[in-house]
Amino acid sequence: MLRAEQLYEGKAKRVYATDVENCYWISYKDDATAFNGLKKGTIGGKGSINNQMSAILFEMLEQNGVPTHFVKLLSDTEMLVKQVKIVPLEVIVRNYTAGSMSKRLGVEEGLKIDSPILEFSYKDDGLGDPLINDDHALFLNAATAAEIDLIKQLARRINQLLTDYMAKREIILVDFKLEFGKTADGQIILADEISPDTCRLWDKTTKRKLDKDRFRRDLGDVEATYREVFERVKAR
Amino acid sequence: MLRAEQLYEGKAKRVYATDVENCYWISYKDDATAFNGLKKGTIGGKGSINNQMSAILFEMLEQNGVPTHFVKLLSDTEMLVKQVKIVPLEVIVRNYTAGSMSKRLGVEEGLKIDSPILEFSYKDDGLGDPLINDDHALFLNAATAAEIDLIKQLARRINQLLTDYMAKREIILVDFKLEFGKTADGQIILADEISPDTCRLWDKTTKRKLDKDRFRRDLGDVEATYREVFERVKAR
Repeated sequence: MLRAEQLYEGKAKRVYATDVENCYWISYKDDATAFNGLKKGTIGGKGSINNQMSAILFEMLEQNGVPTHFVKLLSDTEMLVKQVKIVPLEVIVRNYTAGSMSKRLGVEEGLKIDSPILEFSYKDDGLGDPLINDDHALFLNAATAAEIDLIKQLARRINQLLTDYMAKREIILVDFKLEFGKTADGQIILADEISPDTCRLWDKTTKRKLDKDRFRRDLGDVEATYREVFERVKAR
Repeated sequence: MLRAEQLYEGKAKRVYATDVENCYWISYKDDATAFNGLKKGTIGGKGSINNQMSAILFEMLEQNGVPTHFVKLLSDTEMLVKQVKIVPLEVIVRNYTAGSMSKRLGVEEGLKIDSPILEFSYKDDGLGDPLINDDHALFLNAATAAEIDLIKQLARRINQLLTDYMAKREIILVDFKLEFGKTADGQIILADEISPDTCRLWDKTTKRKLDKDRFRRDLGDVEATYREVFERVKAR
């Protein structure tokens, strides 16, 4: 298997062509950004943790009937994934109030949301990934009505599965961001990553933040916390 | 009929108690505000125009099966309406791109939206009336799921009726904001007003703005334009 030319470099990953048909070679970076790129830094070991943690969670989801782009691990920091065209929606699922939603709606962080909230943001750094609704997504041709329905259904199913998986590891899944992609034959599958960069994870007992908020909010122990989450997620 | 104590003063209207059962006495003001109250001014004759124009449009909607809070005109600037508890959602319907949506999504103004966009903003001046989706509205207890469905259905029907009404008067209904209220017996009805303060209206031929954007954007001829719209709306 060959790693060919770099196709794209994102904030946290590089995407390469490869000689495996309909696949991309992805390399996870230690680079960390927050607030739409305004805050920049490095979290040692993050690329390795996010790559391997995503692999474990993608496999768990696949075993439960959720299609993902994951094919196999290539190294500690690299994975082979199916080629997709990313749907330009950040799909956010919220089980507890936190972050941008708490600010927008003027509600304190940490309130349980009885019926999980699903949000779409339009993936556009220049616009600051604005919150949109289904009608906006259709107008922007981000997805068809049928694709939006399927994405919502998958996101809610993923939330159930991840919430249960984390609960068994004494972790509360507060909220998380998903991205979906469309394969050449038109299938919608889960893409991107599932990691402390893309999920808010709190310790069940102490409510200690076990995610990128440690970096965003300068809470310290960033690298040790990523390692701790990874140890818990790896545990059978 | 008596006008009793003032119950509420909004940016554009005063609401009074009255001795008519289950009714409010509403008085429309000439005061104009924009940008969440940052810009303030007066538009001479606006109170009279918005009151009478709303009355005409509420009657037209009622005749077409849309329940509204309108009971009857009391004077040029006053109307009697049914008592409601306002649902804390601004319901925005968009037929062409303009205003805040154009800015948020980075799209030029004046593009036709094939399938009209419906938006909810959470009515909270302190938060700047943030855009929300259905899940947020449920979480905030702004309305029940059944009420949200009904409000959407009514808003889309109102859009059809108003678009046709304005088209006959050579006016393009670009977008508009509605507010709904809940009566004591739980019925959802259209409330607030329908006027150049709450609608974007463009001349069909010249695309001249015939609405509050003349005030917001300092385009001049504000008062004459409100009078012109009223003349057209009054015409049989």
